[in-house]
Amino acid sequence: MNLPTSQVYPVIWQDDHVWLIDQNRLPTEYDLVQISRCDDMAIAIKTMIVRGAPAIGVAAAYGMYLGAREIETGDRDQFLRELESVAMKLRATRPTAVNLFWATERMLKVARQTIGPVDYLKTALLQTAQAIQTEDLETCRAIGDHGLAALPTTPHKLRLLTHCNAGALATAGYGTALGVVRSVWREDRLERLYADETRPRLQGARLTAWECVQEGIPTTLITDSMAAHCMQRGLVDAVVVGADRITANGDTANKIGTYSLALVSRAHNIPFYVAAPLSTVDFSLSDGGKIPIEERDPIEIYQIGETIIAPEGLDYYNPSFDVTPAELITGIITEYGVVKPADLVGLQAKQVS
Amino acid sequence: MNLPTSQVYPVIWQDDHVWLIDQNRLPTEYDLVQISRCDDMAIAIKTMIVRGAPAIGVAAAYGMYLGAREIETGDRDQFLRELESVAMKLRATRPTAVNLFWATERMLKVARQTIGPVDYLKTALLQTAQAIQTEDLETCRAIGDHGLAALPTTPHKLRLLTHCNAGALATAGYGTALGVVRSVWREDRLERLYADETRPRLQGARLTAWECVQEGIPTTLITDSMAAHCMQRGLVDAVVVGADRITANGDTANKIGTYSLALVSRAHNIPFYVAAPLSTVDFSLSDGGKIPIEERDPIEIYQIGETIIAPEGLDYYNPSFDVTPAELITGIITEYGVVKPADLVGLQAKQVS
Repeated sequence: MNLPTSQVYPVIWQDDHVWLIDQNRLPTEYDLVQISRCDDMAIAIKTMIVRGAPAIGVAAAYGMYLGAREIETGDRDQFLRELESVAMKLRATRPTAVNLFWATERMLKVARQTIGPVDYLKTALLQTAQAIQTEDLETCRAIGDHGLAALPTTPHKLRLLTHCNAGALATAGYGTALGVVRSVWREDRLERLYADETRPRLQGARLTAWECVQEGIPTTLITDSMAAHCMQRGLVDAVVVGADRITANGDTANKIGTYSLALVSRAHNIPFYVAAPLSTVDFSLSDGGKIPIEERDPIEIYQIGETIIAPEGLDYYNPSFDVTPAELITGIITEYGVVKPADLVGLQAKQVS
Repeated sequence: MNLPTSQVYPVIWQDDHVWLIDQNRLPTEYDLVQISRCDDMAIAIKTMIVRGAPAIGVAAAYGMYLGAREIETGDRDQFLRELESVAMKLRATRPTAVNLFWATERMLKVARQTIGPVDYLKTALLQTAQAIQTEDLETCRAIGDHGLAALPTTPHKLRLLTHCNAGALATAGYGTALGVVRSVWREDRLERLYADETRPRLQGARLTAWECVQEGIPTTLITDSMAAHCMQRGLVDAVVVGADRITANGDTANKIGTYSLALVSRAHNIPFYVAAPLSTVDFSLSDGGKIPIEERDPIEIYQIGETIIAPEGLDYYNPSFDVTPAELITGIITEYGVVKPADLVGLQAKQVS
């Protein structure tokens, strides 16, 4: 199939099938996997062919439609019962992914609320999956453009630095932190992106770098510990990262290494921005001390590809994210504009639960 | 051959041969390579079977002796001429390694200054190589014990953190930064060592972690970007690192990532020590801005073992070290004691050129 070469969409609906970029094969191989049945979508989510919270939500919504069109009954009640089984199957794939639950629940609600024969319901489900995808894309574009407007004005073009992958591959497209980078690039205001490789899982090297190469964005890959040295040499104008969860006071949980990056940015007086949709803000938590820190399997540290990098007999500590205190964050870039962490609560009314 | 199991000596003289730990095979394989000829020692240095500035110096000194005993002439002048060729061969292996030049020069000087027949000269050369090795070991032990005395007093045992490998493998034995860790461990004052893996070359994971496992030191391996998070969680009492070059004002060039670590240590008010022999201080340079920063092949970033971690089409920046300003350094631990960076000049008279 033909795809626009310069844009990255991890989930594509075309010719009555879903196509997924196989993110496990990046960056050395670019493969599109055709998904025609709900079961295949469940496997794709479980095996992380598609990953990133918003992207998983979009994939699950299409998974619901694929499941719906496999249901052969013309009886509405029977259809709705079988559709609930489809939702349960999809939810079991990544039980901690909030977007998975949100997307399947929205799809179920649409089916229940649509009047008419089963075929009408199926059409409504496809339209809703497409709407979820479109809305996420629009959210990312809004984040990108608000970020563009908020970044410092410099006599030269901007040199930005990012960590991990908050990009098109993790969303419907365009990305959050990388959405800002894309908007800056589109307006010809980007000189260069520095991408942290992001150990242990190397999402910066594998995914962010790959996305940027697709778009022709000039990108320099560095190891995580080189960021401070680059700042000391005056190579970085601003830092933009994504977020896994933001608390009401603006404290931000994001990929491990983000806190370190925020500290070294502050030491060099370099603005440090968090880019995330408002849905990432958990207004029920007052501060970051209340965010549980997930620890992952140490194999992520001691094995890279087939290579074992450490001896036996060690202990490991592998927290998957850390918490950056609000006072280190210059601004939080949302689809509704850029706010200081302290002003985040002013956006609470806009959040759709 | 039998070796003490709990101690690490990268260069061993035994039964008229040199034995080297093959550092390229660590941490998954422990191999001793027998070196009986100067040519083999040159290859071992060139291929980094032995690495680390002081360890290279010791290896080169033994290489000079091995070369000397291969010289068959009984004529003193002829012997000295051939010995100069041996020195040139060794120096060509790692042309930027200062200790290589220092050690071969010292060996040549001993040969020239020894009175008597060629056999006497050969004996003097072996004794000098052994002396260089012993002196370096004593220097490291003195650094370790001075560091032990200088570390903060805590109600609990110490949790230390280090970066890269400034250990026994990089010296005649015992190490500089790891010498401090060994002294603390010996006195039963160590709770745990946190070891940064140290991308891109992973000397922390490959070498420091391996050394510590040999000695039974409880060690937790983390990725470089996790250090700040560990500090935020209160897991680290002090940081000790080595040095590649220290300028007269105390600015310190060391493995890339050291500067980042110093900044995050300061943000948490955690003492940050540099451990290095006085020979590391370059009193001819006033400050760290004058230290050239070596850039290495980007393959160190994009390939780990056989695994390519990044796409084609990227740029890379791979500085092998960075410069930590003196104001971030709590103390410099030398074999003559621990000094504040500003007081380093007071030790200049003790430096043997």
